[in-house]
Amino acid sequence: METISFTALGLGLIVLGAGIGIGKIGQSALEAMSRQPEMGSKIQTLMIVAAALIEGIALFAIVVAWLVG
Amino acid sequence: METISFTALGLGLIVLGAGIGIGKIGQSALEAMSRQPEMGSKIQTLMIVAAALIEGIALFAIVVAWLVG
Amino acid sequence: METISFTALGLGLIVLGAGIGIGKIGQSALEAMSRQPEMGSKIQTLMIVAAALIEGIALFAIVVAWLVG
Repeated sequence: METISFTALGLGLIVLGAGIGIGKIGQSALEAMSRQPEMGSKIQTLMIVAAALIEGIALFAIVVAWLVG
Repeated sequence: METISFTALGLGLIVLGAGIGIGKIGQSALEAMSRQPEMGSKIQTLMIVAAALIEGIALFAIVVAWLVG
Repeated sequence: METISFTALGLGLIVLGAGIGIGKIGQSALEAMSRQPEMGSKIQTLMIVAAALIEGIALFAIVVAWLVG
């Protein structure tokens, strides 16, 4: 019996996508805060909402990848 | 019996697409907020609507990938 | 018995395309709103119409990928 598993490869792509996405959001949040320092708390809220959307998909996909093997 | 599963690889591509897409949207939302701080709530609404479209496709695709195996 | 399924791989490419496409639309909608804030509701309508076209294709393709297995 041979089993060839692409699970780790898939997990790599998951984190690649989530990293690029959350990276862009975090980058822009810091640039926005440097331009509008008085908007700090609103910028932080918006950043967390946007990043949480990607975070949710990524965590769910990792769990499914684990279950499916 | 040999089983080669590409499920995790597919999950990776799903999150790669969703991450890049929501990342771009979040990035622009934060840049828009830094330019038009008084439009904060409308920008956040537009960002969530756009991101939810990608989120919906991604979650549905993950569930189908799980079911199909 | 060998079974090699590329279904999940296809699902991944579907969401990759839809995510990049809707991401670009959402990005431009937010940039447009930051430049013409008084056009907010028209920009949102236009964004949803454009994104729904991609959404429709993606959902249909996911369902077909599911049925075909």
